[in-house]
Amino acid sequence: MFKFKLLKQSGKARLGEVVTASGKIQTPVFMPVGTLATVKSLTPEDLGNLGAQIVLANTYHLHLRPGEKIIRKAGGLHEFMAWQKPILTDSGGFQVFSLSSLRKISDKGVKFKSHLDGKEILLTPSLAMQIQEDLGADIIMALDDVVEAGASKNRTLEAMHRTHKWLDKCIKSKKGKRQALFGIVQGGMFKDLREESAKFVANAKVDGVAVGGLSVGESRSKMQQMLDVVEPFLPTDKPRYLMGVGSPVDLLESIDRGVDMFDCVLPTRLARHGAVWTKTGKINLLNSKFKTKFEPIDKGCQCYACKNFTLAYIHHLLKEKEILGVRLTTIHNLHFLLQLMRDIREHIKRGTFSCFKTNFIKKFISKS
Amino acid sequence: MFKFKLLKQSGKARLGEVVTASGKIQTPVFMPVGTLATVKSLTPEDLGNLGAQIVLANTYHLHLRPGEKIIRKAGGLHEFMAWQKPILTDSGGFQVFSLSSLRKISDKGVKFKSHLDGKEILLTPSLAMQIQEDLGADIIMALDDVVEAGASKNRTLEAMHRTHKWLDKCIKSKKGKRQALFGIVQGGMFKDLREESAKFVANAKVDGVAVGGLSVGESRSKMQQMLDVVEPFLPTDKPRYLMGVGSPVDLLESIDRGVDMFDCVLPTRLARHGAVWTKTGKINLLNSKFKTKFEPIDKGCQCYACKNFTLAYIHHLLKEKEILGVRLTTIHNLHFLLQLMRDIREHIKRGTFSCFKTNFIKKFISKS
Repeated sequence: MFKFKLLKQSGKARLGEVVTASGKIQTPVFMPVGTLATVKSLTPEDLGNLGAQIVLANTYHLHLRPGEKIIRKAGGLHEFMAWQKPILTDSGGFQVFSLSSLRKISDKGVKFKSHLDGKEILLTPSLAMQIQEDLGADIIMALDDVVEAGASKNRTLEAMHRTHKWLDKCIKSKKGKRQALFGIVQGGMFKDLREESAKFVANAKVDGVAVGGLSVGESRSKMQQMLDVVEPFLPTDKPRYLMGVGSPVDLLESIDRGVDMFDCVLPTRLARHGAVWTKTGKINLLNSKFKTKFEPIDKGCQCYACKNFTLAYIHHLLKEKEILGVRLTTIHNLHFLLQLMRDIREHIKRGTFSCFKTNFIKKFISKS
Repeated sequence: MFKFKLLKQSGKARLGEVVTASGKIQTPVFMPVGTLATVKSLTPEDLGNLGAQIVLANTYHLHLRPGEKIIRKAGGLHEFMAWQKPILTDSGGFQVFSLSSLRKISDKGVKFKSHLDGKEILLTPSLAMQIQEDLGADIIMALDDVVEAGASKNRTLEAMHRTHKWLDKCIKSKKGKRQALFGIVQGGMFKDLREESAKFVANAKVDGVAVGGLSVGESRSKMQQMLDVVEPFLPTDKPRYLMGVGSPVDLLESIDRGVDMFDCVLPTRLARHGAVWTKTGKINLLNSKFKTKFEPIDKGCQCYACKNFTLAYIHHLLKEKEILGVRLTTIHNLHFLLQLMRDIREHIKRGTFSCFKTNFIKKFISKS
C-alpha cells in the first residue's frame, strides 16, 4: 500500500503526496525522530498538535530494547506508541556503523556488539526485514553498508556493491504489500560511485529511493555536490529521502536539489542542550543574558512555547534542569522545522521557492 | 480578596468554596506542588486538563533561583509560569528546616546557608512576607519554626511561641488585600501545645488556618491524633490546610477530620521513581513483570496515560529513562488524587463520605 504523486515542481524542488497504509503525507516532509518509540519528551498528542505527519523509529534501538517481539505482541509500533499516522523505520545499518563496537562486515551481514550489554548480533538483510516487519512501520528501509566521510575508494566501492546485493536480498525476503520498501544510494564522496549507485537503486523494485552516507562529517558543499550528482538518475515518480539531514539550511538546499523526505535528531538533540532556532539563527537559552528577557523565543512564532512563555522562564527551567524546559525547546524546534516545511510546500506551489530559500538563508545565516 | 463558604458537612468532612483573586476553588482540594514555578514535567495546559484548581510554589527555592525580583519583573508568578488560576506560596520555613544547613534560629528569624551555594541568608517574618509579595501568589503563608517529630517539649514549646510571634509580625508587615494570609498551627506531637497553638491561630487576623509540623516522620495514627486535638478549636468559617500531606489514605482520614486543603510532592515524586497509584494500591512500573502487560495502569481510569498507553509501553519508557515515561506516571498520579478529591466532594455533597472512605481504604490497603 504505497503511492507517490508529484504535484508540482519549482526548479528542482518538488511538491508531492505520499500515500501509505496509515495515511497521506505532504512532501517535502521532515520526520521527527522517535528513536525508542517516543519523540523525546513529547506525547503523540503534542506531535499531532505540531503537525507532524510521520515519525521515524530506530530498528537497532528497538531490537535491543524492548525487542521487536514485544512490539509485535503489542500490535505493532503504531499501537505500542499510540501514534496512528505513518511511521518509517530505518534498517539499523547506520546505528551499527555509528554506535556499536567490533563490527565485522561480510556479504552475509554485519556482526556487531550491542552498545548496551556487549551481546553479539549478526544483522543480515533478511533479519533487518524481519525485525521491521514485526515493528510494522509503513515505510521500511533496506540494510546498507555505511562508510565514514574519509573512507578510501576501495572500501567505498566494496560497501556500495554490498549495499546493492543486500538490497536485492531485502526485496526478496520482504513479505506482504502493506509496508513500502526504500532502497539506499551509497557511494561515499565519489561522484562515479554515487552515479552508479543511484542508477542501481533507481532500477530496483523499490517504492522509494533514499540517499544514505551523507551527513557523516563531510562539508555542506560536498553533500550538495553528491546530491547534484545523484539527482538526474533518480526516478521522478518515487519519493527521494535524504537520511539524517535536518538543519534548516540543509533542508532548503536539499529540497532545491529534488529531495522529498528528511529525518534528523538535530531539532530534538539541540533542544535538550538548550539551543533553539529563530528566523535569525540559532541561540542558546542557557546563556545568562536571557535571565531577564521577558519576551518569547521568536516573536511571531505560533508554537506553544512562544505563545505562552518568555525566554526568562525557559532559561530558568533549563538552568534548573526542569523537564518542562526541554519540552518547550523541543516543541519550539520541531515547530520551527515543521513550519519551515509548510512554508516551503506553499512556496513550491506558488512557484516562489527559490526566492523564499534565498531570503530565509540570508536572514538565518546573518547571526548564526 | 478572599472568601470561604462552607457549603455542606458530612460528619466532620466539609464541602466548601474558596474565592481568591485568581478565581474559585472547590474544597476539599489537593494542590500539586510546582517547587520551582513548574509542576515537574507538566505544562500549565496539562494541569488544566487534569482539573488542578490551584498549585503551590516554594518561596525558599524561588528566592534562591531565579530570585523573587525577576519573577516580580515578569509580572508575578502567574505570568512567569503562565498559570492564571490560583497559586499558594509557602513561607520557606519548612524548606529551611528540611534542606538547608547550619540553621541558627532566634526570635529575629532563621539564619541558614543555601543548599546550593552555601550563601548565608537571614529569613525573617517580614522578609518572608516581602518575598511572597514579590512572587504575587493568591494565598501566602506566615513564617513558622518547624521541629522534627522527636523534638523535646522544651524545643517544641519554644518553636510554637516563636511561630506565634512571627505570625503577629507577618500580619503587621503584610501589605495590600489582594493576597490572603494563612497562619500555621504548630506544637509538635504534644496535645496541649497543639491545642494552645490552634486557639492562638484561630484568634489571629488570618484568612485561613494551616496545620504544620505534621508529616515529618510521625506515624499515621499520631498525625490523626494531632488533627483530632486541633479540630475543635479551628474556626468553621475559614479554610483549614494540612501542609505536606498527600497520600490517598491520609487525605481521606484528614478530610474526615475537617481539613479542606492539602499539598504534597508525593504524587509527582513517586511518579519520577516509576510508582503509580491504582484503586487497589501502589505499584512500581519498573518491575519487569510489566514488560508484556498490554493493558492500562488502571482499567477504567480516564487519564491521558491510561486512555492511550499500556503498562508495557510505560515500563519500556521508564526503563530507558525517556522523559515521556515520567510525564505519563505524573499525569496518572495527579489524575488519581484530583479524581479522588472530585469523588470526595461529590460524596460529601450526597452525605455518603464516610461509607466512600471506608470502601476506598479497604480496597486500596488490601494490596499495598
